Amino acid sequence: MAPQYAPSLRSRLPPLLLFLQTGFIVIYAFYTDIEGYVKERDGNTFSNFYPEFQDVNVMVILGFGFLWTFLVRYGFSGAGFNLLVAVVATQCAVILNGIDSWYYRGKIRINLRSLVDAEMCAASALISIGAVLGKTNPVQLVLMALLEVSGFVLNEWLLHTLLKVRPLKDMRLHIFGAFFGLMLTWILHRDGSKQQFEKEKFGRKTGLFSMLGSIFLWMFWPSFNSVLVDAHTPGRKLDAVCSTYLALAVSAVTAAALSVLSSPKGKVNLIHMHSCILAGGVAVGVSISGVHQPWEAMAIGFTAAVVSTIGFRYLKNHMLRAFQCHDTCAILSTHGLPGLLGWLAQLLLQIRDCDNHTMAIRFAVVHICTVLFTISLSVAMGIITGLLLKWNIWRPSQDRKCFDDQAFWEVGDQVFIFSQANTL
Amino acid sequence: MAPQYAPSLRSRLPPLLLFLQTGFIVIYAFYTDIEGYVKERDGNTFSNFYPEFQDVNVMVILGFGFLWTFLVRYGFSGAGFNLLVAVVATQCAVILNGIDSWYYRGKIRINLRSLVDAEMCAASALISIGAVLGKTNPVQLVLMALLEVSGFVLNEWLLHTLLKVRPLKDMRLHIFGAFFGLMLTWILHRDGSKQQFEKEKFGRKTGLFSMLGSIFLWMFWPSFNSVLVDAHTPGRKLDAVCSTYLALAVSAVTAAALSVLSSPKGKVNLIHMHSCILAGGVAVGVSISGVHQPWEAMAIGFTAAVVSTIGFRYLKNHMLRAFQCHDTCAILSTHGLPGLLGWLAQLLLQIRDCDNHTMAIRFAVVHICTVLFTISLSVAMGIITGLLLKWNIWRPSQDRKCFDDQAFWEVGDQVFIFSQANTL
Amino acid sequence: MAPQYAPSLRSRLPPLLLFLQTGFIVIYAFYTDIEGYVKERDGNTFSNFYPEFQDVNVMVILGFGFLWTFLVRYGFSGAGFNLLVAVVATQCAVILNGIDSWYYRGKIRINLRSLVDAEMCAASALISIGAVLGKTNPVQLVLMALLEVSGFVLNEWLLHTLLKVRPLKDMRLHIFGAFFGLMLTWILHRDGSKQQFEKEKFGRKTGLFSMLGSIFLWMFWPSFNSVLVDAHTPGRKLDAVCSTYLALAVSAVTAAALSVLSSPKGKVNLIHMHSCILAGGVAVGVSISGVHQPWEAMAIGFTAAVVSTIGFRYLKNHMLRAFQCHDTCAILSTHGLPGLLGWLAQLLLQIRDCDNHTMAIRFAVVHICTVLFTISLSVAMGIITGLLLKWNIWRPSQDRKCFDDQAFWEVGDQVFIFSQANTL
Repeated sequence: MAPQYAPSLRSRLPPLLLFLQTGFIVIYAFYTDIEGYVKERDGNTFSNFYPEFQDVNVMVILGFGFLWTFLVRYGFSGAGFNLLVAVVATQCAVILNGIDSWYYRGKIRINLRSLVDAEMCAASALISIGAVLGKTNPVQLVLMALLEVSGFVLNEWLLHTLLKVRPLKDMRLHIFGAFFGLMLTWILHRDGSKQQFEKEKFGRKTGLFSMLGSIFLWMFWPSFNSVLVDAHTPGRKLDAVCSTYLALAVSAVTAAALSVLSSPKGKVNLIHMHSCILAGGVAVGVSISGVHQPWEAMAIGFTAAVVSTIGFRYLKNHMLRAFQCHDTCAILSTHGLPGLLGWLAQLLLQIRDCDNHTMAIRFAVVHICTVLFTISLSVAMGIITGLLLKWNIWRPSQDRKCFDDQAFWEVGDQVFIFSQANTL
Repeated sequence: MAPQYAPSLRSRLPPLLLFLQTGFIVIYAFYTDIEGYVKERDGNTFSNFYPEFQDVNVMVILGFGFLWTFLVRYGFSGAGFNLLVAVVATQCAVILNGIDSWYYRGKIRINLRSLVDAEMCAASALISIGAVLGKTNPVQLVLMALLEVSGFVLNEWLLHTLLKVRPLKDMRLHIFGAFFGLMLTWILHRDGSKQQFEKEKFGRKTGLFSMLGSIFLWMFWPSFNSVLVDAHTPGRKLDAVCSTYLALAVSAVTAAALSVLSSPKGKVNLIHMHSCILAGGVAVGVSISGVHQPWEAMAIGFTAAVVSTIGFRYLKNHMLRAFQCHDTCAILSTHGLPGLLGWLAQLLLQIRDCDNHTMAIRFAVVHICTVLFTISLSVAMGIITGLLLKWNIWRPSQDRKCFDDQAFWEVGDQVFIFSQANTL
Repeated sequence: MAPQYAPSLRSRLPPLLLFLQTGFIVIYAFYTDIEGYVKERDGNTFSNFYPEFQDVNVMVILGFGFLWTFLVRYGFSGAGFNLLVAVVATQCAVILNGIDSWYYRGKIRINLRSLVDAEMCAASALISIGAVLGKTNPVQLVLMALLEVSGFVLNEWLLHTLLKVRPLKDMRLHIFGAFFGLMLTWILHRDGSKQQFEKEKFGRKTGLFSMLGSIFLWMFWPSFNSVLVDAHTPGRKLDAVCSTYLALAVSAVTAAALSVLSSPKGKVNLIHMHSCILAGGVAVGVSISGVHQPWEAMAIGFTAAVVSTIGFRYLKNHMLRAFQCHDTCAILSTHGLPGLLGWLAQLLLQIRDCDNHTMAIRFAVVHICTVLFTISLSVAMGIITGLLLKWNIWRPSQDRKCFDDQAFWEVGDQVFIFSQANTL
């Protein structure tokens, strides 16, 4: 391990990826089939669902990827590793989600629904990655994604088995992802983060790429929240779309206002415009089954944006100082707190809608247990994953090489694609 | 107000936004409901309409936002304030468009259709903003958008009440927006625009972002023109999509040809490729109900691109010299002239299709009155809005701070997100 | 022709484009109609097909355009000329594809299907352009696209007439485009390419734009492969989407692994992440009618990515040295080899599925003849086109002006849009 260069991943990353990939192909060969082949579905259903599938796909691959390009020298890693992690996590989640079906039917069925389900699990892993972005290498990211997705699916299975509830994925996705990521970054704490990392700077040039990712997330968040809503009560889907849209609109306005208000010079912080405009989508997503009126969604969006912007401005630094928890993308403020807020909103809304006290108390108990169980499991899994990834065998970069594309990418003014080819 | 720095908006922007936002939430709480809750719609209709809604959403939020990033130091403002203005205008337009329904039913119904309608109104406000981009602060932009949307809705209501016509939104959107914006920039004329503004430069680096926005507008313009076409005559929708696509294709070719032809060095002007390729979409959108043959759409696209490119090359400077009207994005050439051309084309096409003279004359009179009324109202509203915004209470930036992100955004080489947090 | 400046295209490009465009309008005026006008179609079909049409449109206009922005000083040309060529080729392909229908019905019918068909032909031309990007001027690109599209349609017609087969467009698109482009760049060989072209560098700044284009292609490739699959057997469409998605996912993982493995420093090559992640989509697209199991698609994706990455790393340089064939975007590795691999996979899969030997041999003979015929025709057309474009009348740029936006675009630090206007 030379002191000048980041450690080479040549002996780590390719074997891991090739092993995983051949493993996936073998498992898919024996245990899956594509639904279209088994039983023909009416073309109508396909056409109805495919655009929503694509919207979620755009969010996961493009939205998260480009949201993470805001670091001045870490743009290629942000977008590139996001793609890598997302496809590994999706392939893994298809298998894990299908274990039930494999147990009963002998085969895991692959269709658009199972792919969307798997991409949701991948999104949860991507949220966690936000906390450790720039401080981990791709080997660690891939391993982390596998463990996060396993934990997430395990959580769903345990909730279903123990509490007999099957809440929407949206609910646990943000909370599970955020706490998993925070624990991970706490365990992986580096001394370099006490001072500013040398290269952890916001980039003017890449700021617009990050804005692009953020705007894609903002635009397609209604699809994200509505895609898993049960289509048998069709009004619910429209409801979810309109509620999410309104919550996002309110978030954007509120985040801008709060950002200016909390700035000594009265300026908007660009990072707030990237992240906090999404808080309404997160919160409404978590509480979607309780929201029935436009103003409820808007009020949730308003509160979520306030919590998120204030958290972003003041909490991040305290987290670092008090808990040694360096949270690159401030996922606590972007996903954790709005998620908990949405959870609280749903609790209140559902209790209000209950007819009698018994039902209300019963719902409240289950709802509170669900969130406590989810948080506990995500914290436990986060700590285990962190201890595993701390191992030097994965060749983590030095502090000086954190947040730097050059550690992982053949790129730069000296390396031209053809001059390099010529010297081979 | 220090002479060095742009005036702080801390005491202006947050109160305005928070007041508007809480106001909207209160109004929505009492006067709206989501359609899905009232009456279940068949899932089919939702699935058919949702992708088109998303296309329009992408155009309004992403397309216009990134089209405006072409100024070298004004990219964040272009994309960020566009989002802010679009969501404020949309929320306001939902209410204004629903006044009728509130009067008769007591409630404003929110569904995908009403959101698309509102986004169309927001698009009209965004077109106006193109004329004053870089010379106004976000407080002025938000106020302007509210007044523009009110004027636009008022225009629709008056046309319906007085002339008993209800033309497609497309028609008036471009013309109303363009003339409103031109009047506004005329009233808000600054001495700085006589010379070149110091920072009003086209940016090589941001040119590709602008290209991205332009290409998104170009690609989804068929959705923009077809979304409000009556779905009860289904062939019309296909017609509108194909016509718009062909007109856009012809525009792109013609704009490139004319741009090279009018350049002394025989080069393509990048701004022409951004704006004039859209002229065909504007013109066909305005005349969509008269176009029935592919070649009609193509001929309209051809003429629109010629008018737009020539206007861009020669008219913009004359507007500034002769009328002191500094039009940042040349909306006169991009939306105004192609809009009027489309209006003329529709007049000729509809007259040709009329069976007898009486009907033709009747149609012509109504059609001419509609456009004259629309222009008059937009000019009047533009002047009123301009006089209101000229007020110093809104803290306009100095000439030197025009077209500069630094006046509004916490960004730059000195301000790292964490170092700033550390010093709090 | 001054030695300092690239030759002006003022006397070449506008006449060509205006001639073509007026020609197209005249042909469309006499020989086409929009389907919607002739016969009303049920709204359902339109809504089902329109999102898929838009996905393909996004790939052709945005995906290919931005994929080509990776050259440091050639970004505007990459995105801008792509749009220009795509719309010219699409308009031309609508006519050529419709000659059959014109012969029997007297009119060419324009609907979404015919536009998608035409955009597929345009995609084939865009693939060819990848080989000569940066070394040709827009006049040559437009002429080349017209000849490529003509050849591609001729190939389809001849295959149908002589061999009585009508394979999916996907199959021949990549192979025809790749070999056409390679022949073209071989004929147009310049001495400048022996050394490195001065400006043929990969750009750090534009790398993310290229990533954006690549990700759009990656995301919407399932639409590209499924859009032309026969909708009468609806399960096939779902099949095609899921297979393509899985193949792309495997490609992305494999390309990353192989890129690190073949790099001496153990780093990922950014260009590999741009191009080789798409290899699975190409290969599965070619073999789509034979793929019925997820693992088949995944195995094809795996092999395609291996072939493509290894080809990219080692083959490109040898092509240049041994055959004087300078392939800017390495289309041989990105489209040619994965296309041939997919062809081989389909051959094996179909033979396996055949019931008896006679059918298997018959299929094999036809399948082999199809590909040989396609390659021969594309090579012949490529050579003819190359000889035509070598003519000095098209004013090719000097070697020093290759890969430089300044030769074609009014842009740069000296040319502000308004200062230029002021001096008119």
